[in-house]
Amino acid sequence: MRLSRYFLPVLKETPSEAQVVSHRYMLRAGMIKQSAAGIYSWLPLGYRVLKKIEGIVHEEQMRAGHIPMLMPTIQSADLWRESGRYDAYGEEMLRIRDRHDRDMLFTPTAEELITDIFRANVSSYKDLPLTMYQIQWKFRDEIRPRFGVMRGREFYMKDGYNFDLTKEDALHAYNRHLVTYLRTYERMGLQAIPMRADGGPIGGDYTHEFLVLAETGESEVFYDSEITDLTFGAREIDYDNVEQCQAVLEEFTSRYARTDETHDEALFNAVPEERRRVARGIEVGQIFYFGTKYSEALGATVQTADGQSVPVHMGSHGIGVSRLLGAIIEASHDDKGIIWPEGVTPFHCGIVNLKQGDDEADAACEQLYAALTAIGLEPLYDDRKERAGGKFASMDLIGLPWRITVGPRGLKNGVVEVTSRRTGESEEMSPEDAVKKIAAIYANHPTPRGF
Amino acid sequence: MRLSRYFLPVLKETPSEAQVVSHRYMLRAGMIKQSAAGIYSWLPLGYRVLKKIEGIVHEEQMRAGHIPMLMPTIQSADLWRESGRYDAYGEEMLRIRDRHDRDMLFTPTAEELITDIFRANVSSYKDLPLTMYQIQWKFRDEIRPRFGVMRGREFYMKDGYNFDLTKEDALHAYNRHLVTYLRTYERMGLQAIPMRADGGPIGGDYTHEFLVLAETGESEVFYDSEITDLTFGAREIDYDNVEQCQAVLEEFTSRYARTDETHDEALFNAVPEERRRVARGIEVGQIFYFGTKYSEALGATVQTADGQSVPVHMGSHGIGVSRLLGAIIEASHDDKGIIWPEGVTPFHCGIVNLKQGDDEADAACEQLYAALTAIGLEPLYDDRKERAGGKFASMDLIGLPWRITVGPRGLKNGVVEVTSRRTGESEEMSPEDAVKKIAAIYANHPTPRGF
Repeated sequence: MRLSRYFLPVLKETPSEAQVVSHRYMLRAGMIKQSAAGIYSWLPLGYRVLKKIEGIVHEEQMRAGHIPMLMPTIQSADLWRESGRYDAYGEEMLRIRDRHDRDMLFTPTAEELITDIFRANVSSYKDLPLTMYQIQWKFRDEIRPRFGVMRGREFYMKDGYNFDLTKEDALHAYNRHLVTYLRTYERMGLQAIPMRADGGPIGGDYTHEFLVLAETGESEVFYDSEITDLTFGAREIDYDNVEQCQAVLEEFTSRYARTDETHDEALFNAVPEERRRVARGIEVGQIFYFGTKYSEALGATVQTADGQSVPVHMGSHGIGVSRLLGAIIEASHDDKGIIWPEGVTPFHCGIVNLKQGDDEADAACEQLYAALTAIGLEPLYDDRKERAGGKFASMDLIGLPWRITVGPRGLKNGVVEVTSRRTGESEEMSPEDAVKKIAAIYANHPTPRGF
Repeated sequence: MRLSRYFLPVLKETPSEAQVVSHRYMLRAGMIKQSAAGIYSWLPLGYRVLKKIEGIVHEEQMRAGHIPMLMPTIQSADLWRESGRYDAYGEEMLRIRDRHDRDMLFTPTAEELITDIFRANVSSYKDLPLTMYQIQWKFRDEIRPRFGVMRGREFYMKDGYNFDLTKEDALHAYNRHLVTYLRTYERMGLQAIPMRADGGPIGGDYTHEFLVLAETGESEVFYDSEITDLTFGAREIDYDNVEQCQAVLEEFTSRYARTDETHDEALFNAVPEERRRVARGIEVGQIFYFGTKYSEALGATVQTADGQSVPVHMGSHGIGVSRLLGAIIEASHDDKGIIWPEGVTPFHCGIVNLKQGDDEADAACEQLYAALTAIGLEPLYDDRKERAGGKFASMDLIGLPWRITVGPRGLKNGVVEVTSRRTGESEEMSPEDAVKKIAAIYANHPTPRGF
């Protein structure tokens, strides 16, 4: 993308309404614009990151055999009355009356609707196991929306639902989701720690939240420091293998890690003192097993092999897709701006032309642009007639992890400069080597197909 | 995808509520499920087609330099009061009151919000031209929703907006959009004819609707039969070239083609009688140039080169993404089911195993599946233990354009059967040749990246 043809309204001033760094930088970098309290437009740069995150979530869900579909944002209140949650949900549910005076609502979560789809179409144990998911806009009418997209009213969320014949099968689905979530967050350059959580309005005894450590997190968290040494990494996993998935769950949840909601002082004190940590965290996902809560309420049953009719065991599993942008920035920034992890960066690298209008510099930039594009990478080329300082400041603010700087002086020696946004370190090399270096960096960070 | 692991709830009976063939087949093929009047869940098969259509729309918009972004579904009423449309819009607008008693609405279109984003961030002619678009859920509270996704209440739509300094520039944007739309529909296997239209609530003198001819169309259309001979085809186009885009507009709009709203009997009678056609059509898109209507109402101005402040010239351009599924089926089906054009088919081909459980047949199917997957194609393998007749009926209903049939008898002679859904013709060949044939067919129908 050439910046002269893009829409990137970078702000010089820090907007006064933003209390946390991610909100400030998302506004300043021209990623979002508030349209009403807690409701945002996703400007082109923010949209690109949102779509990359969405793409990674899709790929990791599909890899585990989970099936994508989509439910509507507006639902009838009827199903929610059937489950008993219509009255229980309170004022955070956006209630709507249509022109025929029917009670509708903007979906905050979809256990009822997916269960309705299931009960209408599945009647035999032979069709199990089944896990379907969607990535769809949700609405929660927060009384005090704040922190930008981290606690907005309209938010983008992945919600998945498993249907299984037995508790054991459903717990395998639970473990499988835990594995997919570990992979998903790591691809985004995040460490998200599974912590024992509280069921809340979804319900359920088995539930873990995934938390990203950050000073601005809304939850207080207590954990054994050993847990931060764990990574899922590039290991192979067979999602059909019950023992393998169970082993990952045990590995990642056997150490103490809880939020304030479930914190147990006595258990925490059993952790060796030098490993006890109290910090703050941002919740970026949660998995639940809630048994037959919804299948019994809504009559979602299947016939077993011996002809019995039994309610299915279910769980639901969420990832806060739009919230993740905020969480990633909270975890990865400095005083100059955002530092995108390679997995989610909106563009793979920036190209800064130090002397726009200089024939040689322009030609070198065009060649770099063409070479990077030809191998499937997406550079952002700052081709504006601005002074170098302004170009660098914009690039630092929007946080592309790599920058190639091209100027007449370097070109005389046949070199351009490749700079890491994270370390600030620069290296001179030929334009060809610069392309090779960027290509090598992204070999391990494939652009998700769904992007 | 293996059918045994998929969720494809095919119905044997024809649902009584469906009046048109596309609605019937979408329900029977397990593509959608109604959750409330005019509101549908997109089951996995329907979701796949929706995403392919969305992907094609994205690719063709980005090819023209249009920039993707996203606006929220819920908006404040304030901007709509500023433009004067809040009261004008009538009961089709879903009006909502949030917990703080503020007037909100579910967006039916986004001229106001995009203009607000523009006026807050752009102040110089140097930042023009600019075209941004989104593909987002919309809501229109139809009094009588009908025809399934063709006239639903919650619908998925691409809406794009151009901002230009002069009328001439804005008309180039108009022409450019016309070209992108021609390409978009042709990639989906559709002929959509641009017809002179009426501005309606959007406003504007220059506007064309794109109509797909179909008996069940809601609009009566009048046209010169020569227009159906036109195709955009594989020709190259430079979207920056004003004359090239203008020439395409002239080529595709110089013959008589109008809907009942703009029909002019005298002009129509000037068409030679043997070329006059009266038919029905489904509207699948519309482009508008409406000048300074919204920029004046909302104060979206830029400074010109000589320091004057002028309102920008705008247009908006829509494609009915979810409606297109219905339109494509109306245009492409037979009495056995849907016939997907290659560009939008949910799976590239079906694999039918005539004798599931037979070692040789199973192995041959697995090899085909692996070979097709390895070259980036997505087959749907019917690996259920069902009789052949049922498998064929399901495949015909869901409409994959190509089917490979594998059975012990053919394998003895080293062959499988490749069948065209459209013609019903079958050809025997080796499994290797079958893979080559399917690959060759799809070489001209690349899967959109955004899928």
